[in-house]
Amino acid sequence: MKNSDLNLVPFVSVTDMVRMVNRAGVDTFLKNLGQYIEEDFCRWPIFDKTPRTAAHSEAGVIELMPVSDGSQYAFKYVNGHPRNTRTGHQTVAAFGVLSDVRNGYPLLLSEMTLLTALRTAATSAIAARYLARPDSRIMAIIGNGAQSEFQALAFRAVTGITTLRLYDTDAEATTKCVKNLRQQGFDITVCSSAREAVSGADIITTVTADKQYATILTDDMVEPGVHINAVGGDCPGKTELEHAILLRARIFVEYPPQTREEGEIQQLPAGHPVIELAEVISGGVNARTAPDDITLFDSVGFATEDFSALRYVYTLLQQGGCHTMLDFIASPADPKDLFGLLDVAGKDVRA
Amino acid sequence: MKNSDLNLVPFVSVTDMVRMVNRAGVDTFLKNLGQYIEEDFCRWPIFDKTPRTAAHSEAGVIELMPVSDGSQYAFKYVNGHPRNTRTGHQTVAAFGVLSDVRNGYPLLLSEMTLLTALRTAATSAIAARYLARPDSRIMAIIGNGAQSEFQALAFRAVTGITTLRLYDTDAEATTKCVKNLRQQGFDITVCSSAREAVSGADIITTVTADKQYATILTDDMVEPGVHINAVGGDCPGKTELEHAILLRARIFVEYPPQTREEGEIQQLPAGHPVIELAEVISGGVNARTAPDDITLFDSVGFATEDFSALRYVYTLLQQGGCHTMLDFIASPADPKDLFGLLDVAGKDVRA
Repeated sequence: MKNSDLNLVPFVSVTDMVRMVNRAGVDTFLKNLGQYIEEDFCRWPIFDKTPRTAAHSEAGVIELMPVSDGSQYAFKYVNGHPRNTRTGHQTVAAFGVLSDVRNGYPLLLSEMTLLTALRTAATSAIAARYLARPDSRIMAIIGNGAQSEFQALAFRAVTGITTLRLYDTDAEATTKCVKNLRQQGFDITVCSSAREAVSGADIITTVTADKQYATILTDDMVEPGVHINAVGGDCPGKTELEHAILLRARIFVEYPPQTREEGEIQQLPAGHPVIELAEVISGGVNARTAPDDITLFDSVGFATEDFSALRYVYTLLQQGGCHTMLDFIASPADPKDLFGLLDVAGKDVRA
Repeated sequence: MKNSDLNLVPFVSVTDMVRMVNRAGVDTFLKNLGQYIEEDFCRWPIFDKTPRTAAHSEAGVIELMPVSDGSQYAFKYVNGHPRNTRTGHQTVAAFGVLSDVRNGYPLLLSEMTLLTALRTAATSAIAARYLARPDSRIMAIIGNGAQSEFQALAFRAVTGITTLRLYDTDAEATTKCVKNLRQQGFDITVCSSAREAVSGADIITTVTADKQYATILTDDMVEPGVHINAVGGDCPGKTELEHAILLRARIFVEYPPQTREEGEIQQLPAGHPVIELAEVISGGVNARTAPDDITLFDSVGFATEDFSALRYVYTLLQQGGCHTMLDFIASPADPKDLFGLLDVAGKDVRA
């Protein structure tokens, strides 16, 4: 790179991300993304991990999620505003940056609203491949909003599941989800209650958006042997599962210090045993001790998953056509002459 | 704003920032910026403050600095890599975002390499207006790198100082600084040592970049009545002042929990008394008890100053011509149909 190009940083816009995903095909994109996520869970100990910083307000939360593997650094900015859809905004919007640890300069700035939906789904699917019974064939999805289709597609790409049972309190959301997923070839049953949806399901995905303690799933609805993929309970005061379910389940989490604050297990005492997903993926711990075990992935989303996603997108830049270059970092010819940059360019402007 | 524009976020590039500063004039820009910073120090208690998160490596540090006043939220990404100039990179490069707390959406994405240099200098100058003797006329600047000219210009804009004594271990840096500042009308003496530079100075600004414990200023060089503006000691293991100076000085800091980790006072016990700059600016605490007091602004840079800077830049967007709109936040017509965005746009791409 020429010194004169040091100001430029690749930027992946929303349109670029759509193009990037469709060029690969969404199934392939999710499968590849899952591999990056799995790979980073396998080298879990080397990451410099920290719970995300969160700025809470009555309306929602804004979070920063940094992480580094010592060679690259990534952070994501993400909000969570449950009432946003009323004004046409996304409940969860995000963007992120991948950087070079050697000089601190950004390598990539990317939209991450779509990418977060993709990586959340890919993480759930990877977790299920390790945690769910291998003969799982039917998935219930409770909550049919913005994340639901991505969950379905990721599970198909990673675990082969094609049969879905859908339920949402908002019937229009379910209609939208059915329309999108039928086009993708799924076998779908629309259900009139959460109880009906989970009946006969091998995997239960809960992905609702209310910022409150809600009981989406009660204990009597959960059969032995089921895998629960709890995606929607992801900040303090926001849970989806009845307390008694947690006591019956083997609980798997991403990063315990964060999940104890934000996940379903905020309902449990701090010492309640949980298993780190990384321990299962890297092979040290068995997911199940018996077919009747209830496994629970208490997903809140962790910074390494965004790191993996940005790392994957960064490799796709090489294909070209899916980014623009932003004039992002002031880069005077003499790095100690930052002021000269201002002055010289100023003359141009005044002229 | 139309629903269809929800994807767009104003972006101020480096070139835009240069244009914005020169349109106002750098003196006026610094003076106005100082007013925003002062205003926010006056409402200090309302900010949701937290020490920045830092990812340290052998080469440097990458930091995230979030803060919110309950209505707006801002964060800055900033690195600190002392050896970066060897490869033509900036020691300190930065960018930041201002957001709306109500929905978590970004209002502004801006370069902040230049803006950080400007806000650091404006903060120093505002602090000096409160802390230095009112009859201060001569400033020594030790360290003549990227931040030095901004310090000089901000002090002139805010305190009226026009007489400078410059020293740097890198003579070329001093030559560059002299060239830039003579054009701006300063009365400059080039000195051959830090000791010579501080002789007769009313204000001593130290702004060096080494990431180590360095003794730029020794105790015997500091006369009674002097104000020390210590800018360069700003991360763990990086200080500029001899320990004995700290024991003689009234010490003013931005946010004690952060400064005790990063500032000159990391050399002192945790209980050593310091005064929050906000207490002086908002009128509760006197800066000086006697003309012979040595005042020390142990500046490390705090998130509120970036918040103020982004708030100021955001108002300047109204003038037009200094930003572009980025396709940044995925915004499907139906906010619950994020997947539809992918699918529909995908068809366009495949077509």
